[in-house]
Amino acid sequence: MLVCDGGRVLVVPMEGSHWVNMNFLIGALHVRGHAVTVLRSSRSWYVAKESAHYSAITVPVSEGLNEDFVNPIIKRLIEAQRSNSSMLNFVGLYAETFEAMVKATQITCEMATNMFEDKALMRTLNESGFDLVLTDPIVGTGIMLAHYLRLPLVYNVRWITSGEGHLGIAPSPLSYIPMTGLGFSDKMSFLERTKNMLFYLLNDLHHRLKLKPQYQAICDRYLHAKVDFYELLQAADIWLMRVDFVFEFPRPTMPNVVYIGGFQCVPAKPLPEELELFVESAGEHGVIVMSLGTFVKELPADMTDEIAAAFAQLPQKVIWRHAGRRPPVLGNNTLLVDWMPQNDLLGHPKVKLFVAHGGTNGIQEAMYHGVPVVGLPLYSDQLDNLVRLKERGAAKILSLGTVDRTSFSQALREVLHRPTYRANMHRLSRLHRDQPIKPLDRALFWIEFVMRHGGAGHLRTESYKLPWYSYHSVDVAVVWLTVVLILSVLMVGLVRGLCARLCCTARKNKKD
Amino acid sequence: MLVCDGGRVLVVPMEGSHWVNMNFLIGALHVRGHAVTVLRSSRSWYVAKESAHYSAITVPVSEGLNEDFVNPIIKRLIEAQRSNSSMLNFVGLYAETFEAMVKATQITCEMATNMFEDKALMRTLNESGFDLVLTDPIVGTGIMLAHYLRLPLVYNVRWITSGEGHLGIAPSPLSYIPMTGLGFSDKMSFLERTKNMLFYLLNDLHHRLKLKPQYQAICDRYLHAKVDFYELLQAADIWLMRVDFVFEFPRPTMPNVVYIGGFQCVPAKPLPEELELFVESAGEHGVIVMSLGTFVKELPADMTDEIAAAFAQLPQKVIWRHAGRRPPVLGNNTLLVDWMPQNDLLGHPKVKLFVAHGGTNGIQEAMYHGVPVVGLPLYSDQLDNLVRLKERGAAKILSLGTVDRTSFSQALREVLHRPTYRANMHRLSRLHRDQPIKPLDRALFWIEFVMRHGGAGHLRTESYKLPWYSYHSVDVAVVWLTVVLILSVLMVGLVRGLCARLCCTARKNKKD
Repeated sequence: MLVCDGGRVLVVPMEGSHWVNMNFLIGALHVRGHAVTVLRSSRSWYVAKESAHYSAITVPVSEGLNEDFVNPIIKRLIEAQRSNSSMLNFVGLYAETFEAMVKATQITCEMATNMFEDKALMRTLNESGFDLVLTDPIVGTGIMLAHYLRLPLVYNVRWITSGEGHLGIAPSPLSYIPMTGLGFSDKMSFLERTKNMLFYLLNDLHHRLKLKPQYQAICDRYLHAKVDFYELLQAADIWLMRVDFVFEFPRPTMPNVVYIGGFQCVPAKPLPEELELFVESAGEHGVIVMSLGTFVKELPADMTDEIAAAFAQLPQKVIWRHAGRRPPVLGNNTLLVDWMPQNDLLGHPKVKLFVAHGGTNGIQEAMYHGVPVVGLPLYSDQLDNLVRLKERGAAKILSLGTVDRTSFSQALREVLHRPTYRANMHRLSRLHRDQPIKPLDRALFWIEFVMRHGGAGHLRTESYKLPWYSYHSVDVAVVWLTVVLILSVLMVGLVRGLCARLCCTARKNKKD
Repeated sequence: MLVCDGGRVLVVPMEGSHWVNMNFLIGALHVRGHAVTVLRSSRSWYVAKESAHYSAITVPVSEGLNEDFVNPIIKRLIEAQRSNSSMLNFVGLYAETFEAMVKATQITCEMATNMFEDKALMRTLNESGFDLVLTDPIVGTGIMLAHYLRLPLVYNVRWITSGEGHLGIAPSPLSYIPMTGLGFSDKMSFLERTKNMLFYLLNDLHHRLKLKPQYQAICDRYLHAKVDFYELLQAADIWLMRVDFVFEFPRPTMPNVVYIGGFQCVPAKPLPEELELFVESAGEHGVIVMSLGTFVKELPADMTDEIAAAFAQLPQKVIWRHAGRRPPVLGNNTLLVDWMPQNDLLGHPKVKLFVAHGGTNGIQEAMYHGVPVVGLPLYSDQLDNLVRLKERGAAKILSLGTVDRTSFSQALREVLHRPTYRANMHRLSRLHRDQPIKPLDRALFWIEFVMRHGGAGHLRTESYKLPWYSYHSVDVAVVWLTVVLILSVLMVGLVRGLCARLCCTARKNKKD
């Protein structure tokens, strides 16, 4: 009964780093004997048309979530971080992020519309006998498609954009659960709690006014019955959450949320010969690895020069993923590469430090291998991810807005030489690896569970079907407070009436 | 690293059915090579002084949570159920339960006091090098002892008595999470939601005024620093919860709550020869098994007669755990027994129906083996447990207050002959058995995890350390609403002042 060969999985992925780990999961599903079909856009950046692990269906679009979309945003985000006023910085960053989300949703919705309009495609999908839809709910296409095809829905998810989503996972007191994007910990000051609440309200409002309506319009047009997009979002069978509670701050969760943080981490393989030679040449000083992730291949020239100059001062060897102009001040100890086998490098015993932007994949790999981090966060959940390490004493965070050769080399030296950073990261690694089953096996188990049982509805709460006033018991409170109020007023009236009558009678009796 | 032999576990158990499954866990710990010490009271009912699996330390007390305590309560509870008015019934039942909880806490606190006063015992416990305390938090002794001995704390828990505890697990909206003891499902009517809220408030008040102070007095007297009993209660490292989400309604939970429902269920062993012959003699009609659990060995005579008469009408064979007077109307098909191998019977293919009081152990066994249930709930969580089966179409519930031979035999026939009951229970069984690792292995893993890492503090939220007004963000809301109010008043004042001055000047100008 526990074997579930030959399932058929329809994957609607997100681009970029999200695709990197979705593709890892697809590979594992393929090994387990499942047939995977991936729905990609014709302007896809990362999702290849052909793969040994899946077959692809391409939906034509005029725009994609690709370099043309991402590069200008990243440029503006770096500019916003480098502006002088911290308040302007804050407002600029979030205005930029909100705008990017609106645009990304437009691009996503174009693809969804083109998909639903293609009757032949929809017939093919309908007749393909899929067992489930696997999607990243940061985009809504897979959610709506699962409902259309009446298929169980499984998420591979790090976070979702809606404020509602923050609560969608489980009731989330804003007093100790920081919103994604703020970089707060679970121990917030009064001012931080204020910001957290304001940001929640702002984010929720933005989602309701600017993002949800785009999806809702598609729901209204193409889905069988009138459904609310938020209800579809919350009705997923299983949420495979790409964190665990060694990394994530403890918070309420739900029975259908399965934590698979670090599922893509594997023991390091040997390095290519040339790289191995470079790494070994570092001797006892060890190696620093730097990568700013899938999107950021290049920083502004002055910033790059400062980083290169800081590296040049160190006795360590440095491997730096950097695709732009070669900094003139680059030291002999620094090797620039276009691409690196990041997991294998982080797992190499000579690697002492990881300079990272804070993307979930890289941070999980650093945790898995026990390598402390110096973080240069840029946007999205990157600062949040780094804060989770910093709070456990395993990382130091710098701001791209203020970093220079002095502050950067100071940070590198501190993390290299103060032994607590390494010890704390090793502790996280030990805790993370000490699980009853491996995160990838857990992910596969629950995907196959959904195949075996046609869903996992028994793990889903009744909560999201309640109107908000019932969910928060406002109706009960209001009705009964009203009843008590009316009864009190009547009682007071009665007592007054009786008193008046008694007084009257008493006075009359006196007169008589 | 994952092996953890030779741990030392200090167990502070609860009596009765709670002990039955704690003892099962102790047996499994023993097999894994851990040394278990059990702290028992001199008036213990179930916890034996000697066992091959543990060594016992006995604390002398004047009263125990034993037959003398339980039997009169059960008698009064049955009387309360049989009283005519349903309102009286309701109030009577809860008054009775609340009173029993006060008395049980007194008995528990006597044992705790005698334990803390025994300096030699405390020295022994301190010097024994225990790795953790394992306790059932329905009594508080183990919680306080773990704090005193500075040991990690693991719960083996079904529910806790405090209202705060309902929230202690995770934020629990009263709109869809029914309080234990009410017998509501997760789909409540307006009136049920009202009752749920009232019962929560009442329960919380009762706990704060009558139960907590008893524990707090002991905390204040014997623990090193001033600590709040509720904080200790919520600071446990791991909650091994004796339910799973096939049985329990989906609800928010926490990272350190590990669901081990049905951990005591094992495949059926062959029956003793005599019993096997009796069961086989049932032929195709099959067998009904009836047991009202650890406490209730006898019902009032008239009730027993009604049950016996109903059984006598059926073609099935009946095995009934009944210790009292032999009913004169007992049919030839009914075998009375003092004790039965319940798990082995429920796992026998001839057994078609389980008549049960609704205790967690029996219900989990019935689920495991896929045997539908007719429930006769009495008190505590029994009605709640049965409601969980009824909602899934796998049980029928009768009231002990109104049951007679007609209604009882009707219910038996319905569950025997309508195939949905058996099909639904089989579905629950299939879902329950389809887990990535067995519940018992999960329980052992997390106990040993706590041994390996000296606790599991990283899975515990910050929530219970916040004062209530911060937790609910009341302080943030009040401060900022006040600021906005003051600013608005100032603004209105300013505008009025300006207007007045302008008008004045205008009038002056006119006059001039």
